[in-house]
Amino acid sequence: MVSKRRICILTDGYLDVFSAKTAVGLLRYCPDEVVAVLDRAHAGGDLEDLVGVGAGVPIVDSVRSALRHQPDRLVLGAALPGGRLPDAWRATIRAALAAGLDVVNGLHARLNDDAELARCAADAGRKLWDVRACPGVSTVGTGKARQTRAKRILTVGTDCNLGKRLTAMELVGELARRGLRAEFVPTGQTGVMIRGSGVVIDALPADFVSGAVEAAVLEHRDADYVVVEGQGALLHPSYSAVTMGLLHGVLPDFLVLCHAPTRRHMRHTDIPIPPLDEVVRLYQAVLQPIHPPSVVGVALNCYGMSEKRFRQALNQVRTLTGLPVVDPVRTGVADLADAVCAG
Amino acid sequence: MVSKRRICILTDGYLDVFSAKTAVGLLRYCPDEVVAVLDRAHAGGDLEDLVGVGAGVPIVDSVRSALRHQPDRLVLGAALPGGRLPDAWRATIRAALAAGLDVVNGLHARLNDDAELARCAADAGRKLWDVRACPGVSTVGTGKARQTRAKRILTVGTDCNLGKRLTAMELVGELARRGLRAEFVPTGQTGVMIRGSGVVIDALPADFVSGAVEAAVLEHRDADYVVVEGQGALLHPSYSAVTMGLLHGVLPDFLVLCHAPTRRHMRHTDIPIPPLDEVVRLYQAVLQPIHPPSVVGVALNCYGMSEKRFRQALNQVRTLTGLPVVDPVRTGVADLADAVCAG
Repeated sequence: MVSKRRICILTDGYLDVFSAKTAVGLLRYCPDEVVAVLDRAHAGGDLEDLVGVGAGVPIVDSVRSALRHQPDRLVLGAALPGGRLPDAWRATIRAALAAGLDVVNGLHARLNDDAELARCAADAGRKLWDVRACPGVSTVGTGKARQTRAKRILTVGTDCNLGKRLTAMELVGELARRGLRAEFVPTGQTGVMIRGSGVVIDALPADFVSGAVEAAVLEHRDADYVVVEGQGALLHPSYSAVTMGLLHGVLPDFLVLCHAPTRRHMRHTDIPIPPLDEVVRLYQAVLQPIHPPSVVGVALNCYGMSEKRFRQALNQVRTLTGLPVVDPVRTGVADLADAVCAG
Repeated sequence: MVSKRRICILTDGYLDVFSAKTAVGLLRYCPDEVVAVLDRAHAGGDLEDLVGVGAGVPIVDSVRSALRHQPDRLVLGAALPGGRLPDAWRATIRAALAAGLDVVNGLHARLNDDAELARCAADAGRKLWDVRACPGVSTVGTGKARQTRAKRILTVGTDCNLGKRLTAMELVGELARRGLRAEFVPTGQTGVMIRGSGVVIDALPADFVSGAVEAAVLEHRDADYVVVEGQGALLHPSYSAVTMGLLHGVLPDFLVLCHAPTRRHMRHTDIPIPPLDEVVRLYQAVLQPIHPPSVVGVALNCYGMSEKRFRQALNQVRTLTGLPVVDPVRTGVADLADAVCAG
């Protein structure tokens, strides 16, 4: 991206730290590009209080109010199961187009395939960017990722939606600060929006998930490290296909396991999250016959936890796994970077 | 299907038992609907010699020769890695359309999106059926398959392309012969073509694989058995995403492991196939935390093996796994059905 974007993020009805993960990601990594958040229930509120990031960014209640902050695009800022467009958002999207904004959409639903919205965009001369539309990706993975000079790092999870992208991005930053050439490979809508390019792999035909990420990894074959944003969870019945394609596309040298200590069940299911050490063994088991990885550490998402409970959680997981344990937001990821560099 | 189809299968350049698996499946399960196979290298040859099925079906060298057998459609009969359309097939497809045939395509490549072929079809007033185009499937799996009264059976493999569909279809036939209500759920292009309906799951957006098969299983919730055609292999880097989505979409009560004893490496890779018992443990491990399955038996693909080697293979696998072992083509699947009914 050459010129700075002026982003208004739509979260109407979904402004919490998990549902609005696209919003939270943009607020954290592109803070000087977000000019407003549009959310009627929280208009006038404080983003930092609500989701831990976004200090100073106003929450507005309409496209009209957002215009005072001169946005050039509206980004749909929530990730909803199944990826459908909430009906309530349609009027806001139409208003944004009419007001001269482009619309950036990371949902599975394609705005360009929606006759009404496509017509509104054409009438207004604005663009609809469907981030998940990745035409032309049609190669299967073949295990070639093993050929990179770069060490390959993948973030994986005990569940979906608990910090795999954030952990990967923080690790890239930390390795870069140490003078190493570390490249980030985004794989989801938020990562692709933050970077401005990449392939959203969960929208690809399932046969091509591993091939797409393999190709992305090979682009950085000569780096020191390639850090790939993980997706889903190996045991989550909604998303395990994507997770598995990633594992075999990347064939990581190092895994970082992401976990939310307060989470008991996998999100949107009644399925309990197994003990961490069991999850670690399972991730290793599905890679072992092809390219056995080391698990270098655990990244906890302790959002909303008291300092005392947070310290307890770190120690518990350290004892259980014998691995370095961090919370990327509270402790940084230096311990993970140390383990990677030593590995 | 109400009226009988009159199918000409195109295999030009790919007439072997693995590449031409769509052809072989149609010849085996719809023998009275296949009127010709079009393959220049083998024209005039004997299908039964070449691929073990299709006795009496002529191999012809052109659309013109095929017309003597009055086909009403041309089915593209090979499954190619990546699912691209071989350039050499384009002229044949154009000729078939011009001669008044519909064209049925199970490749990832969409004929309806191909400007030239779409125009030829429109000019000729014929249809292009892209079997893998499944618009409107957009639900994620949630583990609901566990609610079926029907026992759920899934065929899985040590590799892709070794008999998972055939094993599933034979098992459905055997259970039906015993008076049980057993339903077949196809998941691949060949199964869908044979049945005339269904969803080819490897072409779905990866997020929706488990949801699509879950929905298909729930349609038969009140049967005695639902037998789902497996796809790919849990350790095959090209196809493991699809396999994983299937496992968590079906949440099978029973697994049947399919294996080709002569296969040393996973197809199109340099990755060795691990020992059978290790593969069994891995399939169980990724299901165990959600719904632990029983492995009821092993189905071997002993195509081309001498009787002596075949007997040896059966005994070896029996000893290694302690499970019933069959070759669906040579021995039938009665032992698997016994194990299922006892389970």
